[in-house]
Amino acid sequence: MNEHSPSAFDIEQAATRIAEHIHQTPVQTSQLINSALGCQLFFKCENLQKVGAFKARGALNAVAQLSSSGAVATHSSGNHGAALAYAARIYGRQAYVVMPSTAPAVKKAAVAAYGATIIECEPTLVAREATLAQLVSETGAHFIPPYDHPHIIAGQGTAALELMAQVTPALDCVLTPVGGGGLLAGTAIAVKGCAPGVQVIGAEPLGACDATDGFRSGQRVTEQTPNTLADGLRTTLGELNFAIMRAHVDNMLTVSEADIVAAMALLWTRLKLVVEPSSAVPLAAVMANPDRFAGKRVGIILSGGNVDLAQLPF
Amino acid sequence: MNEHSPSAFDIEQAATRIAEHIHQTPVQTSQLINSALGCQLFFKCENLQKVGAFKARGALNAVAQLSSSGAVATHSSGNHGAALAYAARIYGRQAYVVMPSTAPAVKKAAVAAYGATIIECEPTLVAREATLAQLVSETGAHFIPPYDHPHIIAGQGTAALELMAQVTPALDCVLTPVGGGGLLAGTAIAVKGCAPGVQVIGAEPLGACDATDGFRSGQRVTEQTPNTLADGLRTTLGELNFAIMRAHVDNMLTVSEADIVAAMALLWTRLKLVVEPSSAVPLAAVMANPDRFAGKRVGIILSGGNVDLAQLPF
Repeated sequence: MNEHSPSAFDIEQAATRIAEHIHQTPVQTSQLINSALGCQLFFKCENLQKVGAFKARGALNAVAQLSSSGAVATHSSGNHGAALAYAARIYGRQAYVVMPSTAPAVKKAAVAAYGATIIECEPTLVAREATLAQLVSETGAHFIPPYDHPHIIAGQGTAALELMAQVTPALDCVLTPVGGGGLLAGTAIAVKGCAPGVQVIGAEPLGACDATDGFRSGQRVTEQTPNTLADGLRTTLGELNFAIMRAHVDNMLTVSEADIVAAMALLWTRLKLVVEPSSAVPLAAVMANPDRFAGKRVGIILSGGNVDLAQLPF
Repeated sequence: MNEHSPSAFDIEQAATRIAEHIHQTPVQTSQLINSALGCQLFFKCENLQKVGAFKARGALNAVAQLSSSGAVATHSSGNHGAALAYAARIYGRQAYVVMPSTAPAVKKAAVAAYGATIIECEPTLVAREATLAQLVSETGAHFIPPYDHPHIIAGQGTAALELMAQVTPALDCVLTPVGGGGLLAGTAIAVKGCAPGVQVIGAEPLGACDATDGFRSGQRVTEQTPNTLADGLRTTLGELNFAIMRAHVDNMLTVSEADIVAAMALLWTRLKLVVEPSSAVPLAAVMANPDRFAGKRVGIILSGGNVDLAQLPF
C-alpha cells in the first residue's frame, strides 16, 4: 500500500470540509428495475451533484487544502475540468483547464461557464501533459491532478460515505465505474472503513479494461488504446489508485458497449435520470451478471450526467 | 361554473385517498437556470411520479370512487392509459385501453407492463371513441375519461397542493402545460383554494392552442388540427375544464416548437431530468416572457417523463 493513501478518517474530514459547497445527492430506486433484475438497487445520484458529476467533491477537497495562493490548473476531457473551475471559483482562484480539441461541447461550455480559461490541445495524453507543463511553468499555477492524488481520492470517497449513511439496512456491495480510479479508490476506503463486510466492485467497459487487467495480473497496465462510448472511463488507472484497488477492492467486472447502452436507456426511461454513459457501466455489470447479485442490496454510484444531446447513442 | 366542478376540499380528500399509492414527488431547482432567467423556478417533478406522469393521481382518484365492481376502460395516446392500468391493478380490476396505432412504443409498453389489455385503433378521435363505445358495450367496463371529469380533475390537483406545501416562502405563480385541461383545472382549484393571490397560468404549444383561443374569445374551441411534438398536449380542452379555466385561471401563454425543444434541452442538461416535450412547455413560456416573470417565484409542474429514446428532438 502506497504510504500516501488517504484513510477513512481523511474521507470523513473531507466530507466536513466540502459539505457547504456540494449537494447531498439523493438515492433513488426503481421497483420496476428491481423486479426485473431480482435484486435491490440503490442509485446514488451524483449526476445531480454540482457540475453534474462526483468530480466536484475531489476538486473542492484538493483546492481547499492548497497551502499557498495562486491559480490552479489541470488537464481534463471534461468533468474534472468543470469541477476544478467550480472549486477555483468557490475559493477565489483563477483556473486553467487544458482540454483535448475533441472534448464534448457540453463539457467545454460547463468549464467556461464557471469562469475558467480553456486551453485546447491535441487529443493525446502526451499533448495534454506537455501543454499543461508549459502552462504551469508560465503561470506558476498549482497542478490539481484529475484522479491520482490522496486529496482527490478522499474527496471522491465522500459520495460512498453518504450513500452508506442514506441506506438502511446496510448494502451488500457497492459498485462504481472505473476510469482513472479516483472514485473506486475513495469508495473502497470509505466503505471498508465503516463496513468491512460490504463488497466493493469496480465496473469497466471491455473497451477500456486496463484496471481489470491489472487487478487480475497484479501488474498495472500503463498504456491502452481505449475504445468505448463511456468517455469518462477512457483514462488509465492511476498508480496510487492501482495500489488501493489491489488492497481494498473485492472484484472487477467488464461490460460490452451494447450492455452500456441498454443500461443507460433503462436509467433514462425508468429513473427518468439523464446520466452519461460512464454512469451506466455498473448497472450494465449487474444486468450482465444476474446470478452474482440475486437477492442482494446493491449500491451504485451514478457518476455524472453531462451528455451532449446531439451525440446520444440511442 | 359547471355544477360538477370539484372543490378545493375535494382535492384535499383526493390527496388523502391516493396518498399510499403515489410518490410525493420532489421539487427541484437550478441556480444556473434561475440566474440565466432572472427568476426563481421550482420544478414539481411529476416525471418521477408512478407511471412517469401526474396522470396516476387522477386515475387513482377516479377508480377508487367507483361504486360498483367490474373492469375499467379508456382511450388514451399514452399516459392516462398507463395511469388507468396502474390504478386498475392497485384496486384489483381488469383494464382495457384503446390506443391509437401511432402511440409511442414506450407508452404502449408501459400500459402492457401494468397488465392492461390494449386495443389498437386508427389515430383519430372518432375511431378512438367508436372503439371505446363498442368495448364498453361488450364488456360492461366503466369508462374512466382522461381529463374531463371531476374525480380526474381533483386527482390531478393534488400535485399543485403538494407543490404549494413544499415551497416556502409562497410562490407568486404556478404554470402547467395544457392538453385536455385536467391538470390546469385541478391546479387552479387547488392553488386558489389555499392561496387566492397566487397566479395560475396555462402554457400551450402554438400548434395546439385551442385552450388559449377559448380563453381569449370566451368560446370553447371544439375542433383543432394539432401540430406539435408535445404529444401529450394534442387533445382538445374538455368542457368542464374550459369552465374551470374561465373561472380560475389568470392567463394563458403560447410557445413555439423551437422554444419547447430549447426548454426541454435545458431541463435535460441542467436538471438532469428526462422529461417529455409537454413538460417543457411551461419553462418555454417563462423563457419567452422574461419580463413577465422577472424576480418572481414560479412553480412549474413537470407533467411527465415518458419519451421514446429513438424519437428525441435533439
